[in-house]
Amino acid sequence: MLRSIGRQWRCSAAFQCHCSNPVRRQQPLAPSSVERAFSTTVGQQVKAQQQQQQQLLQEQQQQQQMNKIDEEVSRLLALKAKLGGDAAPTNQKFTLKTPKGTRDYAPQQMTLRQGVLDKIIQVFKRHGGEAIDTPVFELKEVLTGKYGEDSKLIYDLKDQGGEILSMRYDLTVPLARYLAMNKISSIKRYHIAKVYRRDNPAMTRGRYREFYQCDFDIAGTYDPMLADAECVKIVAEVLDTLDIGDYVIKLNHRQLLDGMFEACGVPAKDFRAICSAVDKLDKSPWEEVRKEMVDEKGLDGAVADKIGEYVRLSGGKELVEQLLADAKLKAVPNAVKGLEGMQLLLNYCGLFNLESRVSFDLSLARGLDYYTGVIYEGVLKAEPGAVGSPVKASPVLENGKPVAADQGSGTVGSVAGGGRYDNLVGMFDPRGKAVPCVGVSIGVERIFAVLEAKFAASNVKLRTNDVEVFVASAHKGLHEQRLRVLNQLWDAGIKAEHSYKLNPKLLAQLQHCEEHQIPLAIVLGDAELAQGVVKLREVSTRQESTVPLAELANEIRSRLKA
Amino acid sequence: MLRSIGRQWRCSAAFQCHCSNPVRRQQPLAPSSVERAFSTTVGQQVKAQQQQQQQLLQEQQQQQQMNKIDEEVSRLLALKAKLGGDAAPTNQKFTLKTPKGTRDYAPQQMTLRQGVLDKIIQVFKRHGGEAIDTPVFELKEVLTGKYGEDSKLIYDLKDQGGEILSMRYDLTVPLARYLAMNKISSIKRYHIAKVYRRDNPAMTRGRYREFYQCDFDIAGTYDPMLADAECVKIVAEVLDTLDIGDYVIKLNHRQLLDGMFEACGVPAKDFRAICSAVDKLDKSPWEEVRKEMVDEKGLDGAVADKIGEYVRLSGGKELVEQLLADAKLKAVPNAVKGLEGMQLLLNYCGLFNLESRVSFDLSLARGLDYYTGVIYEGVLKAEPGAVGSPVKASPVLENGKPVAADQGSGTVGSVAGGGRYDNLVGMFDPRGKAVPCVGVSIGVERIFAVLEAKFAASNVKLRTNDVEVFVASAHKGLHEQRLRVLNQLWDAGIKAEHSYKLNPKLLAQLQHCEEHQIPLAIVLGDAELAQGVVKLREVSTRQESTVPLAELANEIRSRLKA
Repeated sequence: MLRSIGRQWRCSAAFQCHCSNPVRRQQPLAPSSVERAFSTTVGQQVKAQQQQQQQLLQEQQQQQQMNKIDEEVSRLLALKAKLGGDAAPTNQKFTLKTPKGTRDYAPQQMTLRQGVLDKIIQVFKRHGGEAIDTPVFELKEVLTGKYGEDSKLIYDLKDQGGEILSMRYDLTVPLARYLAMNKISSIKRYHIAKVYRRDNPAMTRGRYREFYQCDFDIAGTYDPMLADAECVKIVAEVLDTLDIGDYVIKLNHRQLLDGMFEACGVPAKDFRAICSAVDKLDKSPWEEVRKEMVDEKGLDGAVADKIGEYVRLSGGKELVEQLLADAKLKAVPNAVKGLEGMQLLLNYCGLFNLESRVSFDLSLARGLDYYTGVIYEGVLKAEPGAVGSPVKASPVLENGKPVAADQGSGTVGSVAGGGRYDNLVGMFDPRGKAVPCVGVSIGVERIFAVLEAKFAASNVKLRTNDVEVFVASAHKGLHEQRLRVLNQLWDAGIKAEHSYKLNPKLLAQLQHCEEHQIPLAIVLGDAELAQGVVKLREVSTRQESTVPLAELANEIRSRLKA
Repeated sequence: MLRSIGRQWRCSAAFQCHCSNPVRRQQPLAPSSVERAFSTTVGQQVKAQQQQQQQLLQEQQQQQQMNKIDEEVSRLLALKAKLGGDAAPTNQKFTLKTPKGTRDYAPQQMTLRQGVLDKIIQVFKRHGGEAIDTPVFELKEVLTGKYGEDSKLIYDLKDQGGEILSMRYDLTVPLARYLAMNKISSIKRYHIAKVYRRDNPAMTRGRYREFYQCDFDIAGTYDPMLADAECVKIVAEVLDTLDIGDYVIKLNHRQLLDGMFEACGVPAKDFRAICSAVDKLDKSPWEEVRKEMVDEKGLDGAVADKIGEYVRLSGGKELVEQLLADAKLKAVPNAVKGLEGMQLLLNYCGLFNLESRVSFDLSLARGLDYYTGVIYEGVLKAEPGAVGSPVKASPVLENGKPVAADQGSGTVGSVAGGGRYDNLVGMFDPRGKAVPCVGVSIGVERIFAVLEAKFAASNVKLRTNDVEVFVASAHKGLHEQRLRVLNQLWDAGIKAEHSYKLNPKLLAQLQHCEEHQIPLAIVLGDAELAQGVVKLREVSTRQESTVPLAELANEIRSRLKA
């Protein structure tokens, strides 16, 4: 049964990860109680559900009454205040802020962000991607049953007598809904948009409740690994072009993981729990993970030790060969299929010159329920002390628990990830018609955080607008002349501005140009205007020359080119 | 008192207009009852409010109980279904759709949309705009009391034990919140983002519940009309660059409207209702508007006739002169101030070469509560029968009433609008510190609708990706060679794709190129590869030439330039 199929980041990624926290896994919630129906008596559950229903109903009614009464009381107080004669509009008394886990993007952040997105889009287009967009909310039913426990992180809208709506949790489920709804059986699409998760924000580490995802997905029935390998290539191209530090792309295969668990003797019902433990290997040493498997999850110690031998392996083609010859794995069809897939993928990665970038890593687990084949993750390597090194693990709470420092794995953060998910579109099709998909999601918020830190450490001042020319007055009474010149420049497509004051001081105008790094300034004066010329000033050198008004646009264009 | 300050479109605009429907104005709602407190006894209201509160409480509790019970019943049924042994994941049974009033953007629509937005951004940047972004939801309190009656159109989020949030209704209130919160006293910012209104959608006419706004605003304390005139210039530049047909920019002034009503003898308490009637003059003949004023709004017939004389006036500078000499208006300080403002604005519009584009129009009313100075609206002129003519008024319901056809005013749709709002930021500042603002909002959804209609009427096939080269196999067994060539092209920054099949048919590959208008194709064959060359095919002419593999990227680049 599918339980968690959002494209998710590992905890090590320090952002948007909800897949492997054991504390949360252990708390029984409504959706997971449905799942547990397989192992306990459903009859008991029905009874428990009925009791819970009674209690919930009472509690919620009380709360709703309280809210409603509070609201009405406020309204009454407002009206009564008017009786006192205070009719002036009062200023708001609440603290001005953005909602928890969200932020404004100031012009400087927007400039940085747009630069990152432009580069990512360039890569996506280089691979033939088409853009789509979907509404920010979906019918709640579209999202229901797609994210397992994490469903509780979905933002629901108030039912105001219309449809029941929820805000999108990722871009993958909307894509699947779009493909099934429009009966599209193949597409290469990219989608860059905000998604919403009511998670505990860790904003200093790039984890928000409202954040951007940049997804590229290839849907269609194709020959094995050709599209998958291209997605890995896309991750490499994006990380290369963004130049945010050395990285590795870890690769693994869902079928191999399942086969390996089977070969080691893990009971099928425990695959998920054991996988979730494996998922922590990039933060915790094996001893801790083993302890969790045996003590918390009841795995036989000998079975855990067998897993331990495998999951500590990473390498390239030679590792695949070695495992294909492994007696235990050879006996399990899923393991062989997974390994053959890895062999083909590594071969294609070789043709794409990615040998030094990829690492076949048996500890890579990711959101297992979601993926049906290849999984991969782009991880920034630690560059201690270096300017531009990824944001350090800080003592921030993640899901309410302090985050463990990096345990010597040499990596600090996942900035991209994805894999193959062949069954999601079929869940939306009335006849279950599947459209195989493979995709990648770039973790741009974390990339923004890295770049913002890098930028703050540098002394470069970022320009937040593109103004090419400032039109200044040398003395009073020239505002109409300024407007005429501005109009001439705008009509010629030149980016120009002026002070919105009738008689600004010349010094203030020139200072504005230097502060805002505007390359050129035009200084108008009566003496020059009488001769049909203006002064053109190069702001950085403060050199001025005289240019005829009629040639101004051309002269500016050639100056800007130089 | 401010009541409705979202940037709003007139009903004639056929999209996102909520400002002037008399039916809705007459329904007393909680916010408007506060306002009426000035003219009726507040004591009575308090009593009525208390009664209303009782009734509301009962009704809502009943509804909430029903919802809760329905939900729990569904959960029980789901559990009981499991008792029957049906454990397989079932496909969804609900109708696959996007929420009411929303739509997906398919690749073709995205291409069109991105083209429009790019052009608009270019104009915004030409005027020195910086970008900001704000969260898609705000604390409900930020939006409360800003939109008057239209508050009921705001999407609220469910209270899930956190903050009470609402989705943004426009981009103007978030800007004001941003400026006040960050104590920013001047900025030129643009913001292009989706906003949300739970309105009756009229999607064929470009009116949605989720739609884009493209706003440019100039905040700061400046000399009169300099920033205002630049906003008018921006509207003209946007409409020119989008080339969607002939247009006019109507101009008017809030103070002049108020002054004119005063001069005609409208009681101050009726200004709003009469304004709302004036707002309909672009759809209805004067006789109907007069009828509404007199019969529905109880205005003295003689007063209405005086208004009728003014609101039918439109023109240029000469009209301002004429009105400045008008005995009735001369006596009203507001009217004189408004006219002097118009005089200055028209003077500046002249310097910007906009004489033929602007029209001083006394019937322009817009969302009056919001604006404090200049108001303007860019309106497409009707071009009956012409390809690319604006979307015709169709028999679509608007706020539940059939929309009247265009009444010979020669215009069919507002595609831009804005004005000056000097009091909004101060509403967020604890000490009420004002930041004067003027801005413009481009109605891109309507522009998309116009362009989509124009495009559908043409026979042009829009390209939805940018692929420059397709890499094809002439025969079997060449997929690894294809991947090598693709890698070479991608690394050289060339946009390239291939079939994701090991052995695709050559004809199918070449057809794909022609269908998708890919300019170039590379055809790989063993014979050529043995000599280190490939065939490069110009798809439109089907001409092929032989190019050495080593020179491929350069050759492709020079072909693409040509």
